[in-house]
Amino acid sequence: MSLALWLVIGAGLLAIAYGAFTANKVLSLPTGTDRMREIAAAIQEGAQAYLNKQYTTIAIAGAVVFIVLLLAFKLDFVPAFGFAIGAVLSGAAGFIGMLVSVRANVRTTQAASESLQKGLSVAFDAGAITGMLVAGLALLGLVSYYAILTVGMGHAPESRSVVNGLIALSLGASLISVFARLGGGIFTKGADVGGDMVGKVEAGIPEDDPRNPATIADNVGDNVGDCAGMAADLFETYVVTVAATMVLGSILFTADAAQFMFYPLAIGAVCILTSIAGTFFVKLGKGSTNIMGALYKGLIVTGLTSLVAVGIVTFQMFGFSETIGQTEQGAPFTGLSLFLCGVLGLVVTGLIVWITEYYTGTAYRPVKSVAKSSESGHGTNVIQGLAVSMEATALPAIVIVVAIVTAYNLAGLFGIATAVTTMLALAGMIVALDAFGPVTDNAGGIAEMSGLEGSVRDTTDALDAVGNTTKAVTKGYAIGSAGLGALVLFAAYTKDIEHFITLANAPGSTVHPYFKGMTELTFSLSNPYVIAGLLIGGLLPYLFGGIAMQAVGRAAGAIVEEVRRQFKEKPGIMQGTEKPDYARAVNMLTGAAIKEMVVPSMLPILSPLVVYFVVLAVAGKVAALSAVGAMLIGVIVTGLFVAISMTAGGGAWDNAKKYIEDGHHGGKGSEAHKAAVTGDTVGDPYKDTAGPAVNPMIKITNIVALLLLAALAG
Amino acid sequence: MSLALWLVIGAGLLAIAYGAFTANKVLSLPTGTDRMREIAAAIQEGAQAYLNKQYTTIAIAGAVVFIVLLLAFKLDFVPAFGFAIGAVLSGAAGFIGMLVSVRANVRTTQAASESLQKGLSVAFDAGAITGMLVAGLALLGLVSYYAILTVGMGHAPESRSVVNGLIALSLGASLISVFARLGGGIFTKGADVGGDMVGKVEAGIPEDDPRNPATIADNVGDNVGDCAGMAADLFETYVVTVAATMVLGSILFTADAAQFMFYPLAIGAVCILTSIAGTFFVKLGKGSTNIMGALYKGLIVTGLTSLVAVGIVTFQMFGFSETIGQTEQGAPFTGLSLFLCGVLGLVVTGLIVWITEYYTGTAYRPVKSVAKSSESGHGTNVIQGLAVSMEATALPAIVIVVAIVTAYNLAGLFGIATAVTTMLALAGMIVALDAFGPVTDNAGGIAEMSGLEGSVRDTTDALDAVGNTTKAVTKGYAIGSAGLGALVLFAAYTKDIEHFITLANAPGSTVHPYFKGMTELTFSLSNPYVIAGLLIGGLLPYLFGGIAMQAVGRAAGAIVEEVRRQFKEKPGIMQGTEKPDYARAVNMLTGAAIKEMVVPSMLPILSPLVVYFVVLAVAGKVAALSAVGAMLIGVIVTGLFVAISMTAGGGAWDNAKKYIEDGHHGGKGSEAHKAAVTGDTVGDPYKDTAGPAVNPMIKITNIVALLLLAALAG
Repeated sequence: MSLALWLVIGAGLLAIAYGAFTANKVLSLPTGTDRMREIAAAIQEGAQAYLNKQYTTIAIAGAVVFIVLLLAFKLDFVPAFGFAIGAVLSGAAGFIGMLVSVRANVRTTQAASESLQKGLSVAFDAGAITGMLVAGLALLGLVSYYAILTVGMGHAPESRSVVNGLIALSLGASLISVFARLGGGIFTKGADVGGDMVGKVEAGIPEDDPRNPATIADNVGDNVGDCAGMAADLFETYVVTVAATMVLGSILFTADAAQFMFYPLAIGAVCILTSIAGTFFVKLGKGSTNIMGALYKGLIVTGLTSLVAVGIVTFQMFGFSETIGQTEQGAPFTGLSLFLCGVLGLVVTGLIVWITEYYTGTAYRPVKSVAKSSESGHGTNVIQGLAVSMEATALPAIVIVVAIVTAYNLAGLFGIATAVTTMLALAGMIVALDAFGPVTDNAGGIAEMSGLEGSVRDTTDALDAVGNTTKAVTKGYAIGSAGLGALVLFAAYTKDIEHFITLANAPGSTVHPYFKGMTELTFSLSNPYVIAGLLIGGLLPYLFGGIAMQAVGRAAGAIVEEVRRQFKEKPGIMQGTEKPDYARAVNMLTGAAIKEMVVPSMLPILSPLVVYFVVLAVAGKVAALSAVGAMLIGVIVTGLFVAISMTAGGGAWDNAKKYIEDGHHGGKGSEAHKAAVTGDTVGDPYKDTAGPAVNPMIKITNIVALLLLAALAG
Repeated sequence: MSLALWLVIGAGLLAIAYGAFTANKVLSLPTGTDRMREIAAAIQEGAQAYLNKQYTTIAIAGAVVFIVLLLAFKLDFVPAFGFAIGAVLSGAAGFIGMLVSVRANVRTTQAASESLQKGLSVAFDAGAITGMLVAGLALLGLVSYYAILTVGMGHAPESRSVVNGLIALSLGASLISVFARLGGGIFTKGADVGGDMVGKVEAGIPEDDPRNPATIADNVGDNVGDCAGMAADLFETYVVTVAATMVLGSILFTADAAQFMFYPLAIGAVCILTSIAGTFFVKLGKGSTNIMGALYKGLIVTGLTSLVAVGIVTFQMFGFSETIGQTEQGAPFTGLSLFLCGVLGLVVTGLIVWITEYYTGTAYRPVKSVAKSSESGHGTNVIQGLAVSMEATALPAIVIVVAIVTAYNLAGLFGIATAVTTMLALAGMIVALDAFGPVTDNAGGIAEMSGLEGSVRDTTDALDAVGNTTKAVTKGYAIGSAGLGALVLFAAYTKDIEHFITLANAPGSTVHPYFKGMTELTFSLSNPYVIAGLLIGGLLPYLFGGIAMQAVGRAAGAIVEEVRRQFKEKPGIMQGTEKPDYARAVNMLTGAAIKEMVVPSMLPILSPLVVYFVVLAVAGKVAALSAVGAMLIGVIVTGLFVAISMTAGGGAWDNAKKYIEDGHHGGKGSEAHKAAVTGDTVGDPYKDTAGPAVNPMIKITNIVALLLLAALAG
């Protein structure tokens, strides 16, 4: 095995070591008062119980997929094992992240009672653990399986076994991700929406008030949704993007496959180092309280050092001036072209962060307009929020379009893939910023419930407000990169078909008999099966989003009734003389979330298969493959808009409420505030359930299509 | 001029005669008490003033487009005049419809005070006038200009002059439509949302209470939005579909162009007869109060007789068994195939009506689920409504996909066009059902404001409830047909390019020099400019919808403040001792709506031009034409989903409120009712402003692209 592969493995292990070391540091911190520990224990117990149940259910679904893969690939173990590796590592990243998160929350509360800097450190460290685990495990999984298949089992890097193994590994990650995003999202937003409606609006008690029976469930939700769910999501985007880039490298550059397949791994490896470096710069300036500034300092350091590191890697591997390949239109490109694609990926990251902050930050027009519209009532608040959510799709779409065209002109399809890979290589740092959010959210809840003095709550609130922004920013990043990553998957789909057709129709060929006699597929928009595929693909995010929203609505409605019942049966709760039954709310939501996550998760898995077999029966192979291909683009196009509008809109509603709570338009308790709470409620399943779950959904559709192709090729 | 053309002209004139005769009948009816007349006069005055101002603004925009067309086509008057004809007739249909509607309202109130049957008759007659004017004027405009160009000026039917004239005529209709839908939609929903929020929710007075200063504006809005706006919308869809089918016929069947171009006109002509026949069957059964049943009776009669009539026309023109053409894949098709495509169009109409009723009717799960979710608060109501709105896109999309594939297999692209033409040929009847809505809505308002006894209001309420359903159903129909019609436009775009390329590259050719040396465009999804075009097209409905929603939000917010101000300055209003200043609210909204409609209307006109010139500068002609083509599909794909989800969701919210008002979940005044009012408020701009305006928007983008091609071809 080459030194280069060992170095990548080393980088993955370093990320895990960083995580373990930091976890040790966080867990050694003091946990505050008995009351704080008691609350934290309840949250831990609920989160653990939920995740156990979620992973058990996923394991059953996973076992079915495992067997189907085995059968579809005629008992070849490579895809099935790849799938298992992806699934297990994704699950592990989320699970360990959650384990740390539910222990860091109470320590953050304690640290926040000492100083803002201390609170920030603990919360950010907790986030960084999850972040490094995500990037480290993802990279390790990819490089290890690649090494096992090539070095261990002797497959050529560009062989179908390696390609199928990598795609199946992506499917494993995606499957966990869609389940975790949906299940966790339904749990957390069911608790949040239900708790807020009955607590804040009806009973008039503040958020996280211990008298609200849904409050522990709400805090559990932060961990299983925003922490474990998000970790699975980014793990998936990382794995899928790097794997798709490797696959594309193997198809496009058969002669130098090993080198082009190693390139994305190398980018991933160096960016783990730069992400770790960035974490050391997350510190408040002397006397400063600019938390966002401290976080951005870390992100900027990671970004700039990544720029240098990717440059060095590219120069080492390809040089800057020699022609190393050709674009699809026959133009030669150099190592420098690839490096510029990497730079483009970093620029896109920066722009999307900035655009998301514009649409979800309290300092800008969109959030202020939502806050202002709350003055005239619930209805206008929601209308304005929906309007902002729709408008917010325009700039990201334009950035993505410009990036696609620029990268393609620089280095063809592989240029696009390189840009996304570089974007995703920062995942360690980005997840760190995001996983910071649920920890501070919990920390505030614990401060409130354990009756700590107001100044502690003020500190955790300040941290929490920043957490809301970073959560929104991360989602914008995740969706932007997911859209680009999915395009790379689509490119892999079309190139795979070309590849099979060429091989099958070579004189005297006996391989890939399915593709014998087929000529090039053009996916022309003049072909009605392509239009049909686009529309069917386009409807998937809508149907999926609709089902997910209804699931949250149902879960929240059930929580509202449960809380009302408890208030009625135990009138002492409101006087503080009786204890609410927190566990009942947690158990109820666990059952609801697990039940509700299954059907929508099946949608992206089954749709490509159904479309393929239906069109095959009606109009034959070529139409079927065209329709499935178009469907992949359809799901990307509407998926991108649905996901961006939902996450941006949700963020805007959330911060419009915060803006009013900061004393604008009448402040807390005013009519405008009530309207803003309604908007926030609507935004919750938008931004934390349906929107982010569209991410893995888009990619599963694409990956299943790729595996279908591989199975057809035999 | 052939007898056939005279017969079509005769059918168009018959529709207008029917309208004039029925108008005379309606206007001769009694107008009730002085108070009723006074209110009706205020509504008339407001509507008239609004439309005058709207059409003045549109005239300015229209004059600019007229001049641009003249210049773009090197002073050829054919496109510019076509544009003017389309615009003027579309405006006339809406204007006359509104004139009748604002006079029929008070007569409906008076008739409803006598019996349900009488109220139904007057309201339906008023709707039928608008309906027949829409279909009649649209058909007359098309056939007359076609006759002038071919018979009068001697152009060959398949010549570019005729094609460009027809496309420009469509642009005229589309331009009026997008302005009317947006302007009228912003006016009506600004009044409705603002009035409801401050009246129903804050002051606790019922809808249409004369003490609410926004109440006249609300009734004006019904006429300028739901009547004039909708008439312009359906006029546009009719004209665009028939014109696109004619253009496609001329390109695909150069040898028999005259026959294939006449076919859609013939379908339109016979379906005017069947629509008129249908109107005579709209009557309540003896002792029955099933209003919806009476309306459906008319629709079913029209549908069944149209089936027969289209069969006869097709048989007469083509016979059933001879091969009359080939699909794009070379399969021969017969007259019977075309007839079956017509049948398919009628089946699609039936299915879409049924699906829309399922999603917006009070008898089914979706509306009931929204009503139920209102029990737990404003937030869950909105969440459930959004979920229903997203889910509601799935079945229509599948119906459209199946229709595309079936029609294409029957008779190629022209088969798809025939199916949509037949669908649209029922427009006379469909508009009659829809324009019925605002008349009954107004009638109820007049009954309330003039203090008639409760039983009159009950009768108008019963009519109004049915009007809500028919309005939703018509919108589903309009959008489904618009999506299919837009696909026909896209087909015309691709076929036009093929056509120009073939001519330009014939040996020794000097025509269409722009296309010299170009080879076939494939619009392949593997081309990054196609992906870029898809994404840019996809963002247009989102951006457009977002801007339209914000406009309504702003207008409504302004009305809320105006009403609050009046309540404060004139405390006598609420006691009934002072009169509110209705005119002020009307004037304010007029200004707001006109101002707000301009920018979003420019979006679909300018986008194809901007995309073309930007991509041209970056990557040349082929990339530019590919990107623009893909953009057309992008705008259709997301536009279809955005429009269907908005109109279905809005209808569901509206009827969920009605369902609660009928005594479910606590009935009027309950907390659930308040939540349902919020949902209804959100649904208003969804279903009556942004959603339906997406319709013409999709088509303008396509038509501008077609005209751009024509201008490039020189």
